[in-house]
Amino acid sequence: MSDEQIPGYTLGDDDVPEAPIDRAAFDRLQQSVMFTDDDEEYLQMAGDVLEPQIDDILEVWYGFVGDHDFLLEYFADADSGEPIEEYLDRVRERFGQWIRDTCDTPYDDDWLDYQFEIGRRHHRMGKNEADDVDAVEHIHMRYLVGFIYPITATIRDFLENSDHSAEEVEKMYHAWFKSVTLQVTLWTYPYVPDEDW
Amino acid sequence: MSDEQIPGYTLGDDDVPEAPIDRAAFDRLQQSVMFTDDDEEYLQMAGDVLEPQIDDILEVWYGFVGDHDFLLEYFADADSGEPIEEYLDRVRERFGQWIRDTCDTPYDDDWLDYQFEIGRRHHRMGKNEADDVDAVEHIHMRYLVGFIYPITATIRDFLENSDHSAEEVEKMYHAWFKSVTLQVTLWTYPYVPDEDW
Repeated sequence: MSDEQIPGYTLGDDDVPEAPIDRAAFDRLQQSVMFTDDDEEYLQMAGDVLEPQIDDILEVWYGFVGDHDFLLEYFADADSGEPIEEYLDRVRERFGQWIRDTCDTPYDDDWLDYQFEIGRRHHRMGKNEADDVDAVEHIHMRYLVGFIYPITATIRDFLENSDHSAEEVEKMYHAWFKSVTLQVTLWTYPYVPDEDW
Repeated sequence: MSDEQIPGYTLGDDDVPEAPIDRAAFDRLQQSVMFTDDDEEYLQMAGDVLEPQIDDILEVWYGFVGDHDFLLEYFADADSGEPIEEYLDRVRERFGQWIRDTCDTPYDDDWLDYQFEIGRRHHRMGKNEADDVDAVEHIHMRYLVGFIYPITATIRDFLENSDHSAEEVEKMYHAWFKSVTLQVTLWTYPYVPDEDW
């Protein structure tokens, strides 16, 4: 599927606001998660491994959300409390593209700008707009941070499902872990007063 | 060293405010990081492995902070910009105890209350008070979240430095990863409006 067909996906679009941090601040954040040029290479390797497995990965992640009412709730209609299937489907396609983008290193300015857009789309400031739905208006930040674990740990089996050596799998896995931590950190931006973040 | 001798360490003290979330909310957060009873057991195992290595672990972590001016800055005098050695030493002792507390499962109400105290001590709301220092007044939240990676990844070698099987090391490591993610999530509480967290 080409990017243009993914509903609500706007990475690189002119109407995505610029990131509120400069490259130097982003570089410091990368250092805090020990992210290096090597990780960029291992993420590219991971991208090749994960591409044909994206649907399976999304099955695992959506299964996890679906197994927990307090998580599924964020995809629910604000009034009826019923999960909105079309909303789930649209987000699923973007989530698949997010796997590709996570592995599409190096991270350029468009990518960085879009991380803050992703953050806004979790926060009451921007949730539901991209999909024009009347779902619950806000995703609590605690679950964004908490999700670092499942989104990292569950990728391991998919990375192992390849011809790469154990050492390469380990390095892909750590590059992924660093990138998820880095991205979730960026997504927390709209939740916190600027001077405290 | 007994708890009483650790400077500024107040887990279990009457003057630690109660956690702003109840056990049901804590349980949901544990579910979001896939934390189970098994993890409690593997953390206890990890505690035995890590106890004699605590000084070495702290050397690694303090080395990481010391290698990055933008991190060391949080331990610096607000006026002179020079690192405050006594402050670094006091925090180091508490950081050692934090390793023990992380492995001292199950997590009771005193432990949960204290996680929010740790959060306040990173935020401008409470930083420097426990050590009565005039250091930089606030630790930016982005580095709390970012630190999930180094504090997790660097523990692996220390867990391997034991007689446990590769499978047990793996399970201890994942229990640690879940717990770090869980705790950092709790520490972000004071940074975010209550209804958004």
